[in-house]
Formats: sequence, structure tokens, C-alpha cells
Amino acid sequence: MPVMTEQDLDSFLAREFPIVHQDIRIEEVRDMGVRVRLVVEDRHLRPGGTVSGPTMFTLADVSVYLAILAMIGPKGLAVTTGCSLDFMRKPAARTDLIGECQMLKVGRVLAVGDVLIYSDGEKAPVARATMTYSIPPER
Amino acid sequence: MPVMTEQDLDSFLAREFPIVHQDIRIEEVRDMGVRVRLVVEDRHLRPGGTVSGPTMFTLADVSVYLAILAMIGPKGLAVTTGCSLDFMRKPAARTDLIGECQMLKVGRVLAVGDVLIYSDGEKAPVARATMTYSIPPER
Amino acid sequence: MPVMTEQDLDSFLAREFPIVHQDIRIEEVRDMGVRVRLVVEDRHLRPGGTVSGPTMFTLADVSVYLAILAMIGPKGLAVTTGCSLDFMRKPAARTDLIGECQMLKVGRVLAVGDVLIYSDGEKAPVARATMTYSIPPER
Amino acid sequence: MPVMTEQDLDSFLAREFPIVHQDIRIEEVRDMGVRVRLVVEDRHLRPGGTVSGPTMFTLADVSVYLAILAMIGPKGLAVTTGCSLDFMRKPAARTDLIGECQMLKVGRVLAVGDVLIYSDGEKAPVARATMTYSIPPER
Repeated sequence: MPVMTEQDLDSFLAREFPIVHQDIRIEEVRDMGVRVRLVVEDRHLRPGGTVSGPTMFTLADVSVYLAILAMIGPKGLAVTTGCSLDFMRKPAARTDLIGECQMLKVGRVLAVGDVLIYSDGEKAPVARATMTYSIPPER
Repeated sequence: MPVMTEQDLDSFLAREFPIVHQDIRIEEVRDMGVRVRLVVEDRHLRPGGTVSGPTMFTLADVSVYLAILAMIGPKGLAVTTGCSLDFMRKPAARTDLIGECQMLKVGRVLAVGDVLIYSDGEKAPVARATMTYSIPPER
Repeated sequence: MPVMTEQDLDSFLAREFPIVHQDIRIEEVRDMGVRVRLVVEDRHLRPGGTVSGPTMFTLADVSVYLAILAMIGPKGLAVTTGCSLDFMRKPAARTDLIGECQMLKVGRVLAVGDVLIYSDGEKAPVARATMTYSIPPER
Repeated sequence: MPVMTEQDLDSFLAREFPIVHQDIRIEEVRDMGVRVRLVVEDRHLRPGGTVSGPTMFTLADVSVYLAILAMIGPKGLAVTTGCSLDFMRKPAARTDLIGECQMLKVGRVLAVGDVLIYSDGEKAPVARATMTYSIPPER
């Protein structure tokens, strides 16, 4: 079960990653998963009003990072070791993105999580991602 | 909704891919998804009794292929264009694998599906996969 | 052989993607490949001075996009359909990133390119990426 | 530099993975890389004479495994933790596959290798793969 709440994660993110924190709202923490909103601003857009690929990468990455922290607590510094993303539909213009993250493994040294990314209010996902993290040994 | 049943898919697989068909049982067809069993035999094992990586690839690949066919019918020849897999736990020795496939997109030219692979009876997945298929234009 | 030069690509990027263009220098265009520099600024950094994951994604994505344009010319709008990245080493602090892109396929509808990402001056890559693009039919 | 020769690797594979060994010829071992031939037999083919996806997965997986062993020696048991593959062209019918493997990292706990797969005698690759391996700690 999670050992950090939405508020714990929000405070941690604000302190450690203030730039990322600006764009992120943690909507729900549950066992082995989180739901995260990325508040879309002009700086996330490509010509035509569509959300950029790096913005979707950021949402997937931070969703899995927060889901790991929620399970293991704010100790050590997990780092992304790999990812795969598939971009399936054009995001709605100027619409927040929602990341639904489900962790598949939070092991002693390795964590793997899946993320479905939606334009807020839409039923079909715009992208999917898997992120793998390396969890450093406790000192 | 699916346009082919478990029996339709089984007959198609038996006729078109008899070698693959030997190992595969189609357990359930639903909207945008299938559940498929791979019956593990000695030829699927690595030393130590663990199921080989290529066997898990095969299960993921055939699961997505069948889920696409179920939705679009037995026309044309979809081909795999890419995949990503993460291997998370050692499969149980000499135990069937179950592939739970959820299609994320079945478009006009591109299909994307996620598969969680389990050792039969276990709760935590042994692997995850995403397969992308190209759907040829109808002639 | 390429049909656009470094200067052609630079002008295209400045006009179509002015935000991305700020950070990007196109160092070399060759047959089925490009070398691209990402000029690292404070906004690309994570705490500790290391370059962020989304910045590496951006470099990989723009490298393959430019390599495709170089081969097919500035027609139509190729879109990223998928990617995989592996992060292998910590980038050097406050150091430009170099993307060495090699296209493996530039087909009629699909393009696939590999990118090795280096901290400028280092021999071992910090990351690798494969990006797949869908090329829209000419109208 | 490699600590095992072609003959060392061949003997190791024959002893530890006799089934895989049947299909594999180790053509070259070099610093951080190997070239491996997969001898195509009927059992590797799909209807139409094309080499199956699982066969290409097998070649990529064994190529990276052998390249790791060549660098670290026959100690411990490296296991595949993830992979991505892109299938770009139809392999030539009934033609051996060649795997050109280049390791990008052979670290203390993690190894990453790229593989280009060719139909023997062809210039354009039929597929690409990246395999990640976990290297167990020495006991």
C-alpha cells in the first residue's frame, strides 16, 4: 500500500523538481498507481495547438516516478533507465493531459510502470508509455 | 464489437498458422481484447525449466494478431512492425502462460495492443508487451 | 542522397518550429543521417546540473525528423508514431548534447531511425533512441 | 577487450543452451560486439517462406547475450530484462539471418546492446533490436 499521500508527493515534487511541479497536479494515489494531470500551457504546444511529444514523455516519466515514490517513500533517487512510447491519436487542442499509471513491478532494484495518456474528457488514449526505473540501493 | 468468435479465430489459426496453432488456446474474445493460453511444452523451456523469451514474444504477438482479426475480420494480412517487451519476473516452471491482450487502437492502417503475460494461476505478471501492427489496405 | 542541405533544414525548422529551433544546431547532413547539437541551457537541466529526459527525447525526435526531411524534402508532415529510449550514463553537467542519427528505413509510409546521444566530447553514449515516423501520403 | 573467443562462446552455448546452439554460428567476436548467423530451417518459417518474428527475437537475444559473455566471461547468469524491436523489411525467403551486435554499455549491473538483422547478402537491414540485460552480482 502507498506510504505517501497526494499532499506528500506534491510537497516532495515542489521541493525537489520545482520546474516540473508547475505543470503537474497529483489527482489520485492508490496501491501501485497514480493519476496525474499535466496542465497544458502555450509552452507545451506545437504549431496547430497540439501537445508536443516531449510533454507527453514528461507526463509519463513523472507519473511513474511519483507512483514509485508513493510505494517506497522519499528515499534514494530512482532514475529512468528506459522507456517505450506509442503515439496513437492527436491530442485535443489546448486540453490538459491525464496520465493513468499502473505499476507492474516495484522491486528491490528495478521498477516498471505503464501509463495511458488521455486528453482530459476523452475516452480513447492519445498515447501509451512504459517507463523502467533503477532504484538505487539504500545506504 | 468483435466480428469473429473464439471458434472462428481457432479455425483461422489452424488453417493459416498450423505450427503456432498447436500451442495456442483462445480462451476469450471480447471488445478490443482477447485472452490466450500458451500450452507450455518441453520445447518452450530453457535450462532450469523456465519459459524462453521467444515463447513469450510468440504469445504476445499472436494475442495481438488475434485481437485485431477479431475486430476487423479475416481479411488482408496484418504484419508486426514493432514491439517492446519488459521481462519482470521468472515464469513458474512448466506452467502455461496466459496472455491478456487489450487493444489500444485498431485504426485504418495501424493497430497497437498491450499484453500482460502471466504464469497460469499467478497474480503478478511475468512480462508485459506492446505490439504494433500495420494493416494493409483492402484491395 | 539528401535533397536538403544543413541551411535548408535550418530555415525550415526556424519557420515551422521556432521554439525547437532555438536549441538546435544542424551540424551535418549525409545520406540517411544527420548530426545535430542541442545547446544546453538552464531550462534543460534537472537538479544537480544533469540534462533532463525530455530534453534527450527532444533531441532524438528532432534528429530523426530532420533526417527524414533531408531525404524526402519539405513536403507533408511526418508524425512520430513510436519510440524507445535507453538511458545508459549520466550526461556531463552543463554540456551540449550531440545526436548522431542513422536512418534504417525511409519508406513510402514508414520511417525508422536510430540515434546515439553523446555529451559533447565524450566517447561513450549517454542514451540511445529509436524513433518511428509515419509519412502521410502526398495529396 | 573480449575475454572469450568464438570457440569459447560456441562451446559455452553448446553446453548451456544446446537447443539454441543448433541454429547459431558465431562468426566474429570483437571489442563490444559480435556477428552471429542464424541458420534458417523450415521450423523458423511462416507461411510464404518468410522468417518468423520469434526467430528474429531469438537471434537478437542470443547475439547480445554472447557479446556480454565475450566481455565479462562465463560467470553468473545474465538475464534479459527488456527489448524493443522494429521490423522494417520482409526477410528473403529461406535465407540465413545475420545479427550484427554492438554493445553500448556493459556495466556492473546493466548491459545494453543494439542489433541490426540482415538477410544474408542483403544491404538493408530487415529488423533492428535493442536488448537490455541485468548482470547478477558476483557471489
